[in-house]
Amino acid sequence: MISFESDYTTGAHPEILQRLLETNLEPQPGYGEDAYCRSAKEKIRQALCDEQAEIFFLSGGTQTNAIVASSLLQPWQGVLAAQTGHIHGHEAGAIEAMGHKVLALPEHLGKLDPGELADYLAAFYGDENREHLVWPGVVYLSHPTEWGTLYSKQELADISALCRKYDLKLFLDGARLGYALASPECDVTLQDLAQLCDAFYIGGTKVGALCGEAAVFPRGGMPPHFLNWVKKHGGLLAKGRLLGVQFDALFTNELYARLGQNGIDRAVELKQILARHGVPFYLETPTNQQFVVLPDHVIHSLEARGIRCGFWSKPDPEHTVVRFATSWSTTPEDLAALDAALGQTI
Amino acid sequence: MISFESDYTTGAHPEILQRLLETNLEPQPGYGEDAYCRSAKEKIRQALCDEQAEIFFLSGGTQTNAIVASSLLQPWQGVLAAQTGHIHGHEAGAIEAMGHKVLALPEHLGKLDPGELADYLAAFYGDENREHLVWPGVVYLSHPTEWGTLYSKQELADISALCRKYDLKLFLDGARLGYALASPECDVTLQDLAQLCDAFYIGGTKVGALCGEAAVFPRGGMPPHFLNWVKKHGGLLAKGRLLGVQFDALFTNELYARLGQNGIDRAVELKQILARHGVPFYLETPTNQQFVVLPDHVIHSLEARGIRCGFWSKPDPEHTVVRFATSWSTTPEDLAALDAALGQTI
Amino acid sequence: MISFESDYTTGAHPEILQRLLETNLEPQPGYGEDAYCRSAKEKIRQALCDEQAEIFFLSGGTQTNAIVASSLLQPWQGVLAAQTGHIHGHEAGAIEAMGHKVLALPEHLGKLDPGELADYLAAFYGDENREHLVWPGVVYLSHPTEWGTLYSKQELADISALCRKYDLKLFLDGARLGYALASPECDVTLQDLAQLCDAFYIGGTKVGALCGEAAVFPRGGMPPHFLNWVKKHGGLLAKGRLLGVQFDALFTNELYARLGQNGIDRAVELKQILARHGVPFYLETPTNQQFVVLPDHVIHSLEARGIRCGFWSKPDPEHTVVRFATSWSTTPEDLAALDAALGQTI
Amino acid sequence: MISFESDYTTGAHPEILQRLLETNLEPQPGYGEDAYCRSAKEKIRQALCDEQAEIFFLSGGTQTNAIVASSLLQPWQGVLAAQTGHIHGHEAGAIEAMGHKVLALPEHLGKLDPGELADYLAAFYGDENREHLVWPGVVYLSHPTEWGTLYSKQELADISALCRKYDLKLFLDGARLGYALASPECDVTLQDLAQLCDAFYIGGTKVGALCGEAAVFPRGGMPPHFLNWVKKHGGLLAKGRLLGVQFDALFTNELYARLGQNGIDRAVELKQILARHGVPFYLETPTNQQFVVLPDHVIHSLEARGIRCGFWSKPDPEHTVVRFATSWSTTPEDLAALDAALGQTI
Repeated sequence: MISFESDYTTGAHPEILQRLLETNLEPQPGYGEDAYCRSAKEKIRQALCDEQAEIFFLSGGTQTNAIVASSLLQPWQGVLAAQTGHIHGHEAGAIEAMGHKVLALPEHLGKLDPGELADYLAAFYGDENREHLVWPGVVYLSHPTEWGTLYSKQELADISALCRKYDLKLFLDGARLGYALASPECDVTLQDLAQLCDAFYIGGTKVGALCGEAAVFPRGGMPPHFLNWVKKHGGLLAKGRLLGVQFDALFTNELYARLGQNGIDRAVELKQILARHGVPFYLETPTNQQFVVLPDHVIHSLEARGIRCGFWSKPDPEHTVVRFATSWSTTPEDLAALDAALGQTI
Repeated sequence: MISFESDYTTGAHPEILQRLLETNLEPQPGYGEDAYCRSAKEKIRQALCDEQAEIFFLSGGTQTNAIVASSLLQPWQGVLAAQTGHIHGHEAGAIEAMGHKVLALPEHLGKLDPGELADYLAAFYGDENREHLVWPGVVYLSHPTEWGTLYSKQELADISALCRKYDLKLFLDGARLGYALASPECDVTLQDLAQLCDAFYIGGTKVGALCGEAAVFPRGGMPPHFLNWVKKHGGLLAKGRLLGVQFDALFTNELYARLGQNGIDRAVELKQILARHGVPFYLETPTNQQFVVLPDHVIHSLEARGIRCGFWSKPDPEHTVVRFATSWSTTPEDLAALDAALGQTI
Repeated sequence: MISFESDYTTGAHPEILQRLLETNLEPQPGYGEDAYCRSAKEKIRQALCDEQAEIFFLSGGTQTNAIVASSLLQPWQGVLAAQTGHIHGHEAGAIEAMGHKVLALPEHLGKLDPGELADYLAAFYGDENREHLVWPGVVYLSHPTEWGTLYSKQELADISALCRKYDLKLFLDGARLGYALASPECDVTLQDLAQLCDAFYIGGTKVGALCGEAAVFPRGGMPPHFLNWVKKHGGLLAKGRLLGVQFDALFTNELYARLGQNGIDRAVELKQILARHGVPFYLETPTNQQFVVLPDHVIHSLEARGIRCGFWSKPDPEHTVVRFATSWSTTPEDLAALDAALGQTI
Repeated sequence: MISFESDYTTGAHPEILQRLLETNLEPQPGYGEDAYCRSAKEKIRQALCDEQAEIFFLSGGTQTNAIVASSLLQPWQGVLAAQTGHIHGHEAGAIEAMGHKVLALPEHLGKLDPGELADYLAAFYGDENREHLVWPGVVYLSHPTEWGTLYSKQELADISALCRKYDLKLFLDGARLGYALASPECDVTLQDLAQLCDAFYIGGTKVGALCGEAAVFPRGGMPPHFLNWVKKHGGLLAKGRLLGVQFDALFTNELYARLGQNGIDRAVELKQILARHGVPFYLETPTNQQFVVLPDHVIHSLEARGIRCGFWSKPDPEHTVVRFATSWSTTPEDLAALDAALGQTI
């Protein structure tokens, strides 16, 4: 079976597994105090060109979003996010479980608009009743967004400037960051994020790791007692080495960049194949996720040929919007098989 | 360096890593829907002799304790635990972060006393003001306890009977369950737990896995929408296969039992070595953790010889109570090195 | 000074104060066990024609919304509300403080549309990923709404039917219920609410009481241990008699109905006065709140003449949308003063 | 019927009701912005000799404890309290509902011992694993305690010094503060509390008000956006005047002191009566609560004569520990009736 359902259908890149094997029986202290966490953090700080950056490794995306966002909030504050923001719609209310509200703003192909954000903030601070409202405290962006779209450096700079003007924290969800950084349409670098954001994470789960996200607080900005906060919310692994070794491998010999590049290279080929077979795009994106509309019988026919894509939404009883995702592990052979199957099906 | 600091200083048993390697590039659905989670659950059900048991794989102990215990509670209830219960003293308030109180009862070498529990419950239900109190809802036990001690089958049966009498749920923390089951002093089996408990977990992190705990709800007792509860609290891994493959390996060819046995066999040797060198026991236990009192200079001397043990408490300025833990990965060579170092030190 | 800022600018109706005086020194048990709470509940049950209705007296609106709504939710559920719902925008995130999400739907002059609600629910149950989402559990309506508008009996019946179809609870915020029931445009009775809702409250604070809201759970539907839930969230008054005596008075000799009627009668006169002076309505409503657009200089001029209205929003730098609210205590003399002041100002 | 069950069996002192009547129809702004809240705060500041003190009026004791204590905590902190502390045992887990743990220490007739507190803090800061624990953040005392006992000024000063040494906040629950201040055995004044505590409250509900507690943050120490925090937790009354008018009356002509004095004067007489009839004391206290052991038939006999006392605990099947509480409203006639009834009963 070949799956384009998501970018988390396979295990870990062999270089990562190899490092897990090599380091397996070395005794190491627990809870992230091990040598590999230390080494990985140092490599990430170098990649960010931020020697003061503080880094904490967590297990998954929802966990990272909830723990990091809430750690940046004051009790009277909530998180601003686009309507389509993962924290707003697809994380089972994990932010609210922390006692904080997600304040939803309009989305534009998954993105917040800096002008609308400015208008919202001006209106909020003009509201005489604002002490009865949830105050904005964090702006949450995802990059790539849930729709595979990208912020430009200018857009991020504008949003960052608004955050500083209004004393908000800017938090960027980088669950798929590797596929943003490798996209030819992306003018944002890791160093830019370290300068513009107050926190962001470098996603591992979807970019070649078994699990793991590297939460980054640039410029020494980790909230005090953050480990305790992580522990209190069940996110602290006894064998922190599992995360440290993986990120150490990901930031050795530019593995993270190479994995992102594979996802993007395969996505380019995917778009060509889909277009060649006349599949109508619901949304064509510069990253590793493509959204197309397929008749349900075509989906079933592909499945019968061992090829799966992911359910997104149901515009009418006979069609489905599906997602085709490439990833660090997608091969040219996978795409050739899709090409052949589409040829037999459509 | 040789570490007796804890049972989570090394990675995973080679048979587990081997299975991760073999299955690495197979596409599998996410969020625990993969073939390995299914297979592992089936093997655990067989080991429990409970075909209706429902199982969910989580990442770590604090996460499992908080998510499972809270899922069993009604809003007006809290968790009864011994003063030394891990949830009461060493998990950064993770139960309270869920909005529930831990109701502490006296401990006896880490254990709850069934008679004291009965007295507490009788007093609670005799209190005319009880609607203003936190009601007991779950009884939390750890087995082995934080002090390495064990409940007898009779004690568990007595506590279970009290729970059923008063409509409480019995939840057993099995972070180190493998070392209980392998202990010659343990008359409790997995099947007993499936009959006596409402929930328990089979600890992986401390018994040979990179991470992972198998939360078991015997007799079809998993709370509804449990996956959503896990997601809401950040415990759902996208690549659930990481947990499924590991538990599938642990329950293949009795690996879990073999790993527990190694921890216990080495603990027997450890106790002999400590006794031979005249090290005074603070607490000698039937499982894999031994507590001794060492002069601080001996601890430093051992460290200089590459041998580490774990801080427990400080009875006076010159001595420390330390923990020596064996584990699935402790070797006879490790113990020989300790023996030699103690010979040179004491 | 005469205030039209809100319907909570004055104290309590004299008949209520009189009852507080008369009963003041009688010893009564605490926490709502007193004779006046019992009597008030019985009178409300009779007014509802629901002998099984269960009633709990709370202190204020936000408290009642958060405590009642959360008591009706399962852990995986949130509250559906209009974008303008008070719980969504004006209660400082009190629902989220309970760990639950408010799921916002479009609003139409403050109201949910039954057809849109039906569409939302159909889409939700058609979403294959719904286990990762917050499930709808409660539908929150306010009646009158935050905009002073009213649901028709047919609309409430349609929403109630949807709730029963999808196993949701219907909760109606009646902070200003007295002004709905007295409105000539309202075809909904207390008895209708008792049949259509799973919970609602009869607002006291804005309809003549010093404080207090009567939360009603028709047909024996109060969640178990509700008193404990109230206590846990700080809503239980030691001297519950304060609430019991007030509601006993409100439901004696139809005081609650009379107070609502005064608010509506004065609102009719208010609308006539505003229209006579050519004040443009932003929204004219059938209840006790009217929204008009005033030049800022007129607002200041009214204030100089001792007349205040309430800030609502700022459409442009020179104008403000303001709210004029009448209430149980508004007098014809108050309106005559407004009439005169407008005559001098406009 | 005459009730000694508690100090909240009657309504409000007539001077308070009189002020509610006099101010009833004046329009006032809501949410504590009214003139009476302002005036009451100023009078309290004068009584405290602390012009910088910040004051917020809340409705009841549990609400005040939970909202104030949590507002002083950092996310990694909990509240230290005696085992018998009201927040630990009798508030349905309201602190935990805020996500924070109560860290219980031994009690001595309801009091924390400064030496034991010092030992605890030294041990905590000596624990190498303390980042995995709940950190102490607030010390909670009640004065009088739940057992009616009192801290000496020296004890409070010692505890306050420990708090400052370890950067903890000292919060004192003054639900019955009036009865402490009037006790001949009390050497602590309101001004002392303003100097030694970081927060405390002056209880109204049990000292003559219908409801209401004045939370005091001496020296400008109210946490930022405290009103929002109160609103978020359902504690903000729309008609804040209800609280303002009552505290304005309580701090006019020393009413609060007079009411405390009545409670103490009657308690002295009560103790004499109980002693005269040979009733064995379980605990004789310097404040308004006395605990005695009565045979159950005596309790029933007193009830038959219209006299009630409060259940406390059940030492054996035939006896009950009961509380006799005097209050601001207890009269010499009440005590004469008790005296007569005891004479007929024992």
